[in-house]
Amino acid sequence: MNPASLVPYRNLDNLRVVLVATRNPLNIGAAARAMSNFGAEHLRVVNPYEVAFREARSAVGAAGLLAKAKEYATVAEAVADCTLVVGTTAGGRRDLQHELRRLESGARAITRRTKTSPVALLFGSEKFGLSNEDFSHCHWLMRIPTREAHGSMNLGQAVALCLYELVREKAAAKNEKASRRNFTERELQAKAGDIERLTMLLYDVLRHSGYVKPQVAHATEEKLRRMLRRLDLNAEDAELWQGMLRQIQWKLDAKEPRREDGK
Amino acid sequence: MNPASLVPYRNLDNLRVVLVATRNPLNIGAAARAMSNFGAEHLRVVNPYEVAFREARSAVGAAGLLAKAKEYATVAEAVADCTLVVGTTAGGRRDLQHELRRLESGARAITRRTKTSPVALLFGSEKFGLSNEDFSHCHWLMRIPTREAHGSMNLGQAVALCLYELVREKAAAKNEKASRRNFTERELQAKAGDIERLTMLLYDVLRHSGYVKPQVAHATEEKLRRMLRRLDLNAEDAELWQGMLRQIQWKLDAKEPRREDGK
Repeated sequence: MNPASLVPYRNLDNLRVVLVATRNPLNIGAAARAMSNFGAEHLRVVNPYEVAFREARSAVGAAGLLAKAKEYATVAEAVADCTLVVGTTAGGRRDLQHELRRLESGARAITRRTKTSPVALLFGSEKFGLSNEDFSHCHWLMRIPTREAHGSMNLGQAVALCLYELVREKAAAKNEKASRRNFTERELQAKAGDIERLTMLLYDVLRHSGYVKPQVAHATEEKLRRMLRRLDLNAEDAELWQGMLRQIQWKLDAKEPRREDGK
Repeated sequence: MNPASLVPYRNLDNLRVVLVATRNPLNIGAAARAMSNFGAEHLRVVNPYEVAFREARSAVGAAGLLAKAKEYATVAEAVADCTLVVGTTAGGRRDLQHELRRLESGARAITRRTKTSPVALLFGSEKFGLSNEDFSHCHWLMRIPTREAHGSMNLGQAVALCLYELVREKAAAKNEKASRRNFTERELQAKAGDIERLTMLLYDVLRHSGYVKPQVAHATEEKLRRMLRRLDLNAEDAELWQGMLRQIQWKLDAKEPRREDGK
């Protein structure tokens, strides 16, 4: 468990997620949930098909965010306070008149702008996407890198992906480092002496079981030694194996006390 | 408009998306749609709550993929042919016994492995996520970097994010092709089915030796399962261990034939 990777995001304060002419209120709820997951708070809704969208059950854990959503009659009003307006599109068919950026590079541009002023990210209706008129309010368009053969995504998933990419750009490098450090500290490797004791224990159990052929005993011992080192055991697992093998050894001895010559 | 960004993906051929105990068939459909969006074809379903999940309307454009989904009764069967099994988790609450990787670095490891052999990516039920027993089949766990205050994501969105990151990584990896060319062929990793057989064999030997305490038998089984997966055995070593344990089992049986009830 790495606490560093769980810091709350306050990076998306300047982002406005704008859902235009959404038909299914469950998709508005799903978008709200994803926004809450990644720390975006400002939801704007333009002409939703369903007036009672605020009750959407799909907004699990994001009812408050959904209740605070602002409603607008036009895209122009919904983006009025923003200095950058970006439209999303599956981008496959229409003859687009806008610059089209892939999500990865588009997110970088959005991130730069949100440092200083509000940015609107527009999502169109489930069936038709954004209209050409909606596009006309946008500075450029952005697409998620789906397959050409099946580009159209579920609305809630598209919102989640865009937010993830925005958070990813912000937080990945920082948290990754902390995560790696925490793990290596926890993962104490076993000492060579412990591994050698384990090797001898396993060899003894196998000899007692008839696995070790006398004429190749030494080669088998070397094989076991190499194999146990390949496992690269941590200290805890080495101890676990030792406990298990001791118990097996005890059981084998109890049934058939070994002879003096050890065979 | 950049045509290069619209090439179809054939990178996820070796990925198996495994949905465990999913309650809402709409979420299975949404997962199928996201898979189709990013070119992952192999959907596996373990114990779905709703038997008629294949009719889910949410699988827009992915009805064929959903029809081909394979059903399994257990996680063990669903991942048997995979050499790497990764569980997803919101990761906030439980005391996890596994290494937890963030999506970004986890996806890199998955991508490396899918170049040579099948990888299973597990998603738990909407309400409870994956169980500890499900986790015990996993080599490590992966989490999407959501906020601590609201970590739990919609299932379809979580699937979409993981696939996006895998595709994202692929596109990025292409740029590093030169530096990767010297990457030597990996050792052949053991399949999950072989590791599970090994787990059962070791468990049997330990039970026969008196190592397994009846009142914590199930916990011990899970502990062994986790431990064996941590070893990340290659195919050859898995076979070696199987041979050794079979011989020990035979010796223990020869000395003290087991009773009918297996104790």
